[in-house]
Amino acid sequence: MKQVVTFGEIMMRLSPPLNYRIPQASSLEITYGGGDANVGAALVHLGMPAAHVGCFPDNAVGHAAVQAFRAHGVDMSHCVFRGERLGLYFLEVGASLRASRIVYDRYNSAFANLQPEWFNWDDILKNAQWLHWTGITPAISASAAQATREAIQAARRLGIMVSADVNYRRNLWQYGQKAQDVMPELVAGCDMVVCTEGDAADLFGIKADEGAENSFVSMSEKLIERFPQIKQVIATKRKTQSASHERIKGMAYVNGAYYQTLYFDINPVVDRIGGGDSFISGYIYGQQHYPAVEEALTFATAASALKHTIHGDVNLVTAAEVEHIMAGNTTGRLLR
Amino acid sequence: MKQVVTFGEIMMRLSPPLNYRIPQASSLEITYGGGDANVGAALVHLGMPAAHVGCFPDNAVGHAAVQAFRAHGVDMSHCVFRGERLGLYFLEVGASLRASRIVYDRYNSAFANLQPEWFNWDDILKNAQWLHWTGITPAISASAAQATREAIQAARRLGIMVSADVNYRRNLWQYGQKAQDVMPELVAGCDMVVCTEGDAADLFGIKADEGAENSFVSMSEKLIERFPQIKQVIATKRKTQSASHERIKGMAYVNGAYYQTLYFDINPVVDRIGGGDSFISGYIYGQQHYPAVEEALTFATAASALKHTIHGDVNLVTAAEVEHIMAGNTTGRLLR
Amino acid sequence: MKQVVTFGEIMMRLSPPLNYRIPQASSLEITYGGGDANVGAALVHLGMPAAHVGCFPDNAVGHAAVQAFRAHGVDMSHCVFRGERLGLYFLEVGASLRASRIVYDRYNSAFANLQPEWFNWDDILKNAQWLHWTGITPAISASAAQATREAIQAARRLGIMVSADVNYRRNLWQYGQKAQDVMPELVAGCDMVVCTEGDAADLFGIKADEGAENSFVSMSEKLIERFPQIKQVIATKRKTQSASHERIKGMAYVNGAYYQTLYFDINPVVDRIGGGDSFISGYIYGQQHYPAVEEALTFATAASALKHTIHGDVNLVTAAEVEHIMAGNTTGRLLR
Amino acid sequence: MKQVVTFGEIMMRLSPPLNYRIPQASSLEITYGGGDANVGAALVHLGMPAAHVGCFPDNAVGHAAVQAFRAHGVDMSHCVFRGERLGLYFLEVGASLRASRIVYDRYNSAFANLQPEWFNWDDILKNAQWLHWTGITPAISASAAQATREAIQAARRLGIMVSADVNYRRNLWQYGQKAQDVMPELVAGCDMVVCTEGDAADLFGIKADEGAENSFVSMSEKLIERFPQIKQVIATKRKTQSASHERIKGMAYVNGAYYQTLYFDINPVVDRIGGGDSFISGYIYGQQHYPAVEEALTFATAASALKHTIHGDVNLVTAAEVEHIMAGNTTGRLLR
Amino acid sequence: MKQVVTFGEIMMRLSPPLNYRIPQASSLEITYGGGDANVGAALVHLGMPAAHVGCFPDNAVGHAAVQAFRAHGVDMSHCVFRGERLGLYFLEVGASLRASRIVYDRYNSAFANLQPEWFNWDDILKNAQWLHWTGITPAISASAAQATREAIQAARRLGIMVSADVNYRRNLWQYGQKAQDVMPELVAGCDMVVCTEGDAADLFGIKADEGAENSFVSMSEKLIERFPQIKQVIATKRKTQSASHERIKGMAYVNGAYYQTLYFDINPVVDRIGGGDSFISGYIYGQQHYPAVEEALTFATAASALKHTIHGDVNLVTAAEVEHIMAGNTTGRLLR
Amino acid sequence: MKQVVTFGEIMMRLSPPLNYRIPQASSLEITYGGGDANVGAALVHLGMPAAHVGCFPDNAVGHAAVQAFRAHGVDMSHCVFRGERLGLYFLEVGASLRASRIVYDRYNSAFANLQPEWFNWDDILKNAQWLHWTGITPAISASAAQATREAIQAARRLGIMVSADVNYRRNLWQYGQKAQDVMPELVAGCDMVVCTEGDAADLFGIKADEGAENSFVSMSEKLIERFPQIKQVIATKRKTQSASHERIKGMAYVNGAYYQTLYFDINPVVDRIGGGDSFISGYIYGQQHYPAVEEALTFATAASALKHTIHGDVNLVTAAEVEHIMAGNTTGRLLR
Repeated sequence: MKQVVTFGEIMMRLSPPLNYRIPQASSLEITYGGGDANVGAALVHLGMPAAHVGCFPDNAVGHAAVQAFRAHGVDMSHCVFRGERLGLYFLEVGASLRASRIVYDRYNSAFANLQPEWFNWDDILKNAQWLHWTGITPAISASAAQATREAIQAARRLGIMVSADVNYRRNLWQYGQKAQDVMPELVAGCDMVVCTEGDAADLFGIKADEGAENSFVSMSEKLIERFPQIKQVIATKRKTQSASHERIKGMAYVNGAYYQTLYFDINPVVDRIGGGDSFISGYIYGQQHYPAVEEALTFATAASALKHTIHGDVNLVTAAEVEHIMAGNTTGRLLR
Repeated sequence: MKQVVTFGEIMMRLSPPLNYRIPQASSLEITYGGGDANVGAALVHLGMPAAHVGCFPDNAVGHAAVQAFRAHGVDMSHCVFRGERLGLYFLEVGASLRASRIVYDRYNSAFANLQPEWFNWDDILKNAQWLHWTGITPAISASAAQATREAIQAARRLGIMVSADVNYRRNLWQYGQKAQDVMPELVAGCDMVVCTEGDAADLFGIKADEGAENSFVSMSEKLIERFPQIKQVIATKRKTQSASHERIKGMAYVNGAYYQTLYFDINPVVDRIGGGDSFISGYIYGQQHYPAVEEALTFATAASALKHTIHGDVNLVTAAEVEHIMAGNTTGRLLR
Repeated sequence: MKQVVTFGEIMMRLSPPLNYRIPQASSLEITYGGGDANVGAALVHLGMPAAHVGCFPDNAVGHAAVQAFRAHGVDMSHCVFRGERLGLYFLEVGASLRASRIVYDRYNSAFANLQPEWFNWDDILKNAQWLHWTGITPAISASAAQATREAIQAARRLGIMVSADVNYRRNLWQYGQKAQDVMPELVAGCDMVVCTEGDAADLFGIKADEGAENSFVSMSEKLIERFPQIKQVIATKRKTQSASHERIKGMAYVNGAYYQTLYFDINPVVDRIGGGDSFISGYIYGQQHYPAVEEALTFATAASALKHTIHGDVNLVTAAEVEHIMAGNTTGRLLR
Repeated sequence: MKQVVTFGEIMMRLSPPLNYRIPQASSLEITYGGGDANVGAALVHLGMPAAHVGCFPDNAVGHAAVQAFRAHGVDMSHCVFRGERLGLYFLEVGASLRASRIVYDRYNSAFANLQPEWFNWDDILKNAQWLHWTGITPAISASAAQATREAIQAARRLGIMVSADVNYRRNLWQYGQKAQDVMPELVAGCDMVVCTEGDAADLFGIKADEGAENSFVSMSEKLIERFPQIKQVIATKRKTQSASHERIKGMAYVNGAYYQTLYFDINPVVDRIGGGDSFISGYIYGQQHYPAVEEALTFATAASALKHTIHGDVNLVTAAEVEHIMAGNTTGRLLR
Repeated sequence: MKQVVTFGEIMMRLSPPLNYRIPQASSLEITYGGGDANVGAALVHLGMPAAHVGCFPDNAVGHAAVQAFRAHGVDMSHCVFRGERLGLYFLEVGASLRASRIVYDRYNSAFANLQPEWFNWDDILKNAQWLHWTGITPAISASAAQATREAIQAARRLGIMVSADVNYRRNLWQYGQKAQDVMPELVAGCDMVVCTEGDAADLFGIKADEGAENSFVSMSEKLIERFPQIKQVIATKRKTQSASHERIKGMAYVNGAYYQTLYFDINPVVDRIGGGDSFISGYIYGQQHYPAVEEALTFATAASALKHTIHGDVNLVTAAEVEHIMAGNTTGRLLR
Repeated sequence: MKQVVTFGEIMMRLSPPLNYRIPQASSLEITYGGGDANVGAALVHLGMPAAHVGCFPDNAVGHAAVQAFRAHGVDMSHCVFRGERLGLYFLEVGASLRASRIVYDRYNSAFANLQPEWFNWDDILKNAQWLHWTGITPAISASAAQATREAIQAARRLGIMVSADVNYRRNLWQYGQKAQDVMPELVAGCDMVVCTEGDAADLFGIKADEGAENSFVSMSEKLIERFPQIKQVIATKRKTQSASHERIKGMAYVNGAYYQTLYFDINPVVDRIGGGDSFISGYIYGQQHYPAVEEALTFATAASALKHTIHGDVNLVTAAEVEHIMAGNTTGRLLR
């Protein structure tokens, strides 16, 4: 099977045990993740080959990050070891009415300082069937944006599917260019996007029609009109009850039709980081294994629901486990 | 007071911390338990003497298992140290809609390879008032089934009460005999059994009357008709909400009358392994300390509910703590 | 800003990890806390200066307790190092229907054996704006009661506000005097008290009028009548659902008017010890930062709700975090 | 085989992980031990039955201590559950030139407050072959001294061997009687004692002859002369290199002859608490399994050396493991 | 660069923390290793590509083992997922004069039950330059021995170097064939072997000449005479001081010449499992990067010395780190 | 007593448990330290008041660092909360012949970006008797160098003693100025310096006379000649045996006389970070408490030796503990 290739930054995540606050912690638990690499790693666990492309400092911390994703089975052979530091973030896990809180410490990372010419995309993508990126990558630095651009161009050239999680984070864009100027060109090269109404409004000035029956549908129609390469728009909707209790459903607008799932109830939430990434990997997998959009979408949403019960950024579940949930086994009966 | 004697395999349980999956774990938490030994250990914590009979490898692992049950106060003096290995199982603890999952690794255990002649049941039972076994034991090997048979015969000979948790596990029966051939003779020697409608159907071909008002009652009547030594049939009914949220009630069919408790709500569940065993130990204790079946049954169900809040296989609660719950103190107010 | 000064015993709290019972534990987690010192420490985290006055053994354990509160930023310079031992308590954290349970081991502590003359209250209070104490302190020993008396007298002399959490614990009063004889004089010197209907009945024989529309109001009116220095009576009301699920609201009777908040829902509860102390610190802070009693009370109750999600006795939250809850952000959305 | 019976206090030991100091610790590791109970527990691991007699608070902490010794296989059925608290001590483990340091917190313990009449020694000792006590027990309280006295008298009456580790700790004797008045009568009832030259001088005014070739021999001769029931005096000599490096040899004066072993080198020391207790248990075992004093003494010293490599107070080694060392296998070659 | 391919069983290693004994442990630390796979993994860390061939149960435990070696960067794509269980072993880490101790639990493992036809060696070795195996593999089962035979034959056919660690473990050979019958044919196909004088005597009846100046040389000469394909015989010599202190030197007999290194002193030893495997990987690497045998041997021995300071079975060091030691930097000065 | 004031960067130190390498770690232990702040914190533990001046990000990580030093009792009231991130470093702790290894990640820290005008040195130093800084501070950024310059000028103006650990780290100086240009002016303002022969040569071109009997003395003479304000030059000399075994002695050149101590042997080393800082704090304390330089120097060296047995950067020992070592008690006998 051909690979799904992801491109983006992998960071070290440092988190106090349980629900401790950082000043209480005498140790921090570490995991490694990135919004794009998480998609690839989850795909491998589901059963599809994936490769990730990134840039890491050539020190123990950088190698630790790479080893973590190699353990998942991701092909890391295209990664580059240059630069000063691995980006990192601190996560305090909340509970009940106290929100989880992230402190980023990612500036000047090896990935932010990458040079586009370090990556030969024609070579990287020669065994690929799919390229996935997120809106975080072009937000990090001009060179990361340029590398994203080149990757998309190569993918188009080679006839490879391209998907993006547009994921607009206002305070990341600090290198002098505006998301509104950079993102349209990149998104224009995509076949499938994850995009919320908020993202569409902020990035592209696309607003659902007032009074539209379904604002996601309205937004999706306009998005596809603007970017005709896009064939599918997907997203999750969260009804967050508390830091410990989440409800999510999946939505898709595909070929002019709207699909949605029922809400999945997740209580308690073990770890909600990477919930969106696992939705995407579930959808990529689902598309290739189910004839109906409904099924692919349900698979994706069930996978995302399961992710909320998994520690770390990456969705460590098999396709069989997701199908078990799809089949309605959501009461958690002990499996022997 | 005379002992309750249990017979069966004790295994090492290996479980990642918290809700981690096995490949994430850099360490595994260990506890020791067995469906029968758990009953005895819980009885000691409630205040009744108990002895367990088993077979262990004469190495650090076997001795660790024995020490764990000695710590509970169980008389382990009849245990035999022979054989190669301790059976073990890996437990991944689920959460919310992700089920807990067990990987067994128990074949060729010291217990499976025991020889019936190593156990002199007349001697073992000379201080006993009660013998308890589970359907797992005769499922493990022909010799374990034979030793169970001999234990029951000795108990009957000595006028000692016999109880069983019939607990049919299809994939355990792999030594060439069928549960349907072995179990009837063993169950015939019991005064009290834990048996669900599914167990009765699978093992004895006993099905509740279609259209019966209460299928448990219908099944129990037929079971007693077939095995007239049986005086009491008990069971719990679970309304599993999720891997983290359980509701249970107790049911008993005694002397032609049906009893049930209200549902106990357990949210969150700390550890559901051993929930059934704690129900049985609660019922054995309750029977001897309460005149009314209703009370014994409520005690048993409250004990089982409490077990779901206790880490490990064994119910580490005193009779006073169970009675505190029986008295309606289920809101968990801090006790100083 | 002038200091809030607290006086009382700080104990070592020893608690098994997670929901383990003590005999299961191979290690105990330690934190340090005291009903009064917790108030001061939380105030520092909210942004107000505080000092704590106590007495500690001059050994590693005593110094560890002092260092813990110095870390919070509390001025510990008035503490005395004399005596034999630090009081301690063991806490088993329950779950669901199993209550948390405390085993005290605090007799003969350095604090219990303090001498009143070791504390020069005029000096201690010279930078103070507020003195806070709890009903636990005069319950510990005659000398502790006397020191409390002297502290209150000095505060009154210096025109400093005095508050108390009357917090009647029957089984603490074991040194030969009765709470009913000691407490009235002390409470008479207070401007603000935390007092429940139960406390008022037990300590002062004050009972809400039968048939009163609101028993808290009725009690408060009588309390103020008896102790005219008191201007404000506050309390929380708990609807404890289980050891893991709590609902609380705040109540205040101020200048003849009654105020209450909506219920805050806390599920799951991470740690409920110190929930009351955090309410008090929230109210002291709130009073000085909000013109309206309603707001101060909501701040206090939101602070207390947040405390239930924080490990340890002390409420490690900033004023901004409390205000985030006050503003209705109780669904725990991830903060980046 | 008949039991070795020990009598004394078991304490909870609280120790920071690794070489941390107490104020650095966020958790404390707990083990349970006592100078006498350690002897019994080690004997069980060596293969001899033992019972321990003590007094514990009837709370989770007291039961945890009893369970710990039941796990070792010690018969705890004569223990009494009465009193307020379990004695405890804090241990900071040193390293290299930094000494380990103990902070005791044992006053007012359940054991200190025992009543002698709670113990029926004729019944307790009816299956015993040996009674062992230490000088710590009569130092704790008058009632503990009295119970020791009664135990020794019963043992003499029943013809049971009595041994003592005289172990003089000056600052323990605080209840109004002097060690010098209490100990002689107790020691007079012993057949075997562990006694250093320092102990003999401090307790009995017995000093080795000046210029004696071997001061241990000189002291032993005089001790036996004073207390003619004593047949054997044993002790270890330590050449402590650092907190991490110890050298010990065993010495015995038996029937007028002096025996000593070579030095055993222990580097690094894992845990030196209980090193003396393991020497005694080794000697009791050795006496019964080796015809020659030399061998019993070497066994005892090898056992004590091994103890220094075992975490906790109790020597968790089998007789075969000690014999492996006796046979010269001290280079630690991996055993498969 | 072409791969070094290893073949053999990977086991889960379960070890109490620090120097605890198994019955003391409430958790066991897990790592994964195998005498052959360790060689490959260490080579990847040194900078050479490696692949491992093995057989694993298709459950969480089997996948965990594979992920661990994928993390090292070993190509695990030829591994097969069939069979019941992963072999495992328990390791108690000794200290000072107490030896470390292993309890094996490896029978009936997925690897032991492999079928030779599952492995297409011509395909597996098509990118290989080297095949390495150990004497443990043919000891496990007849089918494992047959697969080893086929692997060697394929390697010879393809002109690939073959090496073996003959590593005779008497009590492993339990499937009905004798090592003395099986091993000669296998060893005959090797270019390089690790073989001690003991191994040679036990397996091949080859004894160093009595009175030989150097028994390793004498043995090596005879070994090469018997198995003329062998060009190099290497081994380490250990002067084990204690479980915590090791001294090792390297020896090689190559083209009729004898080489040895100085002794490397390792004190303390962090983890000695895999010390031999790291010597072999060091030698394979060294051979290809240094012109002189002396240097390759020193590299190998320095690598092995470093391994003793690394936790787990695999030598996690870079070539630069080994060269730092080779250059004489053995005093452990802090590297910034 | 007046304060010792230190100025410099405090970093988070992230270290795998035990001797693990970073890619093996699932958690990292955190402590906080800085070459200058460590001196102040150790002084507080010895019994002298200290204040530290620094700059921290106003997030959970910055506050955690400040709380850690407040816990030590250091006055942190002059610290500023501005900037983006806390500098951090990763530490892999070596063993035996494997060196410990540090990976710095400190660029763009809040401290590096401080503005000199944020610090009013006349105010900060108004209760000070001593100012201490290290050569790391002016190496970080031009503004940090400028603030150091202003602090020294203020100290000189106020008649306060100034000391420095010149501590030249070549690869830190990256902001465009050379150490050789910046340091002389700063060192010229010092009364006491820690300076090795290497530092003097690299920074000031000062070399000991060839053939000098004692190169430290020769260097010190020239240093004092160049910088006449300096009255005392001190340093430690290490004979590093391995990463686990250190020997250190103290040297001082004071008023034309040379002093040195014997070597202190530290085996094993628990944590060598901060060994130099503890020497300085010991010397500052020693100077004020001992009339003779020899004693102050021995105190300082004993303090530093003890630090090697303490986890973390800060020397957590009392003056009494240092004096215990000074008195020759280096064999680590258990203290009860």
